[in-house]
Amino acid sequence: MNRRQFSFGLLGAAGALMFRSPLATANGSVPELRVNGARISEHLSALAEFGKNPQGGVSRLAYSEADRRGREYVFGLMQRAKLDVSIDPAGNIIGRRAAGNNDDSLRPILFGSHIDSVPEGGNYDGVVGSLGAIEVAQTLAENHITTRHPLEVVIFQNEEGGLIGSRAMNGELSEKELDLVSRSGKTIREGINFIGGDTAKLSGVKRDKGSIAAYLELHIEQGGVLETAKIDIGVVEGIVGINWWDVTIEGFANHAGTTPMNNRQDALLAAAKFIEAVNRIVTSIPGRQVGTVGRIQALPGAPNVIPGKVILSLELRDLDAAKIQMLFEKIRTEAGQIAQTGKVTFDFKEINVNIPAPTDARIRSLIDQSAKGLGLSTRQMPSGAGHDAQDMARLAPVGMIFIPSVGGISHSPKEFSRPQDITNGANVLLGTLLKLDRANLSSG
Amino acid sequence: MNRRQFSFGLLGAAGALMFRSPLATANGSVPELRVNGARISEHLSALAEFGKNPQGGVSRLAYSEADRRGREYVFGLMQRAKLDVSIDPAGNIIGRRAAGNNDDSLRPILFGSHIDSVPEGGNYDGVVGSLGAIEVAQTLAENHITTRHPLEVVIFQNEEGGLIGSRAMNGELSEKELDLVSRSGKTIREGINFIGGDTAKLSGVKRDKGSIAAYLELHIEQGGVLETAKIDIGVVEGIVGINWWDVTIEGFANHAGTTPMNNRQDALLAAAKFIEAVNRIVTSIPGRQVGTVGRIQALPGAPNVIPGKVILSLELRDLDAAKIQMLFEKIRTEAGQIAQTGKVTFDFKEINVNIPAPTDARIRSLIDQSAKGLGLSTRQMPSGAGHDAQDMARLAPVGMIFIPSVGGISHSPKEFSRPQDITNGANVLLGTLLKLDRANLSSG
Repeated sequence: MNRRQFSFGLLGAAGALMFRSPLATANGSVPELRVNGARISEHLSALAEFGKNPQGGVSRLAYSEADRRGREYVFGLMQRAKLDVSIDPAGNIIGRRAAGNNDDSLRPILFGSHIDSVPEGGNYDGVVGSLGAIEVAQTLAENHITTRHPLEVVIFQNEEGGLIGSRAMNGELSEKELDLVSRSGKTIREGINFIGGDTAKLSGVKRDKGSIAAYLELHIEQGGVLETAKIDIGVVEGIVGINWWDVTIEGFANHAGTTPMNNRQDALLAAAKFIEAVNRIVTSIPGRQVGTVGRIQALPGAPNVIPGKVILSLELRDLDAAKIQMLFEKIRTEAGQIAQTGKVTFDFKEINVNIPAPTDARIRSLIDQSAKGLGLSTRQMPSGAGHDAQDMARLAPVGMIFIPSVGGISHSPKEFSRPQDITNGANVLLGTLLKLDRANLSSG
Repeated sequence: MNRRQFSFGLLGAAGALMFRSPLATANGSVPELRVNGARISEHLSALAEFGKNPQGGVSRLAYSEADRRGREYVFGLMQRAKLDVSIDPAGNIIGRRAAGNNDDSLRPILFGSHIDSVPEGGNYDGVVGSLGAIEVAQTLAENHITTRHPLEVVIFQNEEGGLIGSRAMNGELSEKELDLVSRSGKTIREGINFIGGDTAKLSGVKRDKGSIAAYLELHIEQGGVLETAKIDIGVVEGIVGINWWDVTIEGFANHAGTTPMNNRQDALLAAAKFIEAVNRIVTSIPGRQVGTVGRIQALPGAPNVIPGKVILSLELRDLDAAKIQMLFEKIRTEAGQIAQTGKVTFDFKEINVNIPAPTDARIRSLIDQSAKGLGLSTRQMPSGAGHDAQDMARLAPVGMIFIPSVGGISHSPKEFSRPQDITNGANVLLGTLLKLDRANLSSG
């Protein structure tokens, strides 16, 4: 008797009282298998203690002591869910569950999320998907469910500081990046070693493209679309591409009292027209693209001096990289007109480009079926935020499940998702996982 | 023989060779009395050494070592111009010249400017008026010209840091202000004592309203109006009022990726519309009013976060306080509309108000006559910048003479006024002073 079989045996009696094993049904459906929502809530409250802020929410920055202790707690939960838990050299926590009969011929299905937070963040971003994934594993264990594919629950490290854990897994994390200082104050290298990774063995973390059957992630929406439309489950079409430029506008700084209005080269007035133009152009065509100017600096920055220079950020996001480019061209053309009228110059410097990461159509369909089988309403939607799933999409077909965020608020102590929505999300994750396990993925 | 008469005697012979004494002419006109332009240029070059920057211009911040040494140089020039020089308790340098026959029955006529600069400032702002005034005194001395009124050349201290010297003279400088730290790093109190003042005796500096016959100031325009219009002399109608508000716009900070365009409360987008509205409203009516947004801060200030809060400065200037108020009301009304559309709030906090300081109509007329008598073209115009003259206007009738600034550039190493324009300005100052001396000022 191996360890896994022994473990199953321990909880088998209790599990059998609650659920009928889906593998025992004639048609292979899983009509009654459900996660334990109350248990997720308990775990969520317990995890919220690590890095708790007096004003609510958490500051559980990757590589902080709060992060380390939160990870220890989650490590323990994964062990109790009968997973074979370890920390990979990149610091990701991996909980393995073997395939039925220890058949390793099929590639693993991965699912999970992250538990690190932004400074003064909330208790749901990443946590819902992490605890939901662990709950799914525990539900499988309690109900003696075996799967065709091996499973891996993954708690990625440092999602908020640049998707570090998932980028190590897809091989994109560079040596140079390891020396950057994270918000914890430690370098990424120091941080990885602090949480139990081993940067000397980092190359061993990399998975080959095609070596993973699929990756699933449950997450809060972080926006208000689902709540506003009263939809239970978002079926994520993909993670949007993000293009970020720094825009420098040069005019001429001059005395605000002695320079007549018609003789100014006011860089801030030009910036104002530009910001208005970005909003107008982005909203001028149908679609869910967004455009944001979030940062602005006007120099010299005195009330009595006409600004001679403005530096601002321009960020465009959409599922379609071509649409981002088209919007940018329109914006740049209009900037040219503003420059001419205002006697200023515009310079665009591309700072960062994240290409869009579409999810897998077959998995989207399985998520939709799972949700509807549970009586839940669904909507296809993009993820406007970045997620570890976008890095996993380079390696495998991915699927993402969204649940509503109350008020659309995220990265804030006010972040909240209702317990019923969390339970719904975890049940959809469970159902999708089991459907996926039995599907013949073309690339698997 | 008193000291003054002795001094006159010393240079009398040389002066008489060059100029005919105006007092000797039958009609009282002064057709041939002229300043020595080459000497002003020499003094200007010499003064430019104190606080000289490697990249050009000067940083002669009030209360700095460069300021102290520059003042010593100017003090010496004033002595050579046969003035009775002293430093008043506020640190202003005062050079007195008695009335003809030591008749003290008439009130003094004051004229002068300042020699302190902004950081990385130019060699003309304040300096032209200071050296011009000293040159006028020296010309009078060399030509044995006596005046009906006693004269005082005043080099006000710390004009750039808040008109400190002239505000001490009109009694507006508060005890509390003395403890503010100036750009030199010293408090104003420390600075005044550093340059030879005595803050313990500050109350003695105050002049009573009506105790001064008139104040005249020559200054560079600091704008490009005269140069563009090819006009020699600006006859200043008054120093504009300046109203400064800090405007706080509150929206809601949210995720730039997950918040749809139609669901944002973008404080920076509202700020952009506001900045555009300020420009549009200020330029929508005829006149020389100006409106400037020079400072802006957007919070939290990240490329991927919709700004939830913006704080910006609004500054309006005009000769007519009622016009400033009217423009502000229009701006505030439009801000209300922007607030409604953008789901944000606007709050206006008045930070500072300088009321407009009109110059004296009779003195304007004398300046105009003096300039035209020299064959110079004139234009009546407001001073968009603040000057010590605005504080003197609370005590006495004032007049201001502007000369062109090349390119309209000021507060910059590129600040420049042509030697001929400087000479013209000093000659107009001289002519105006003598006409004024012989006029019967109604309040004198």
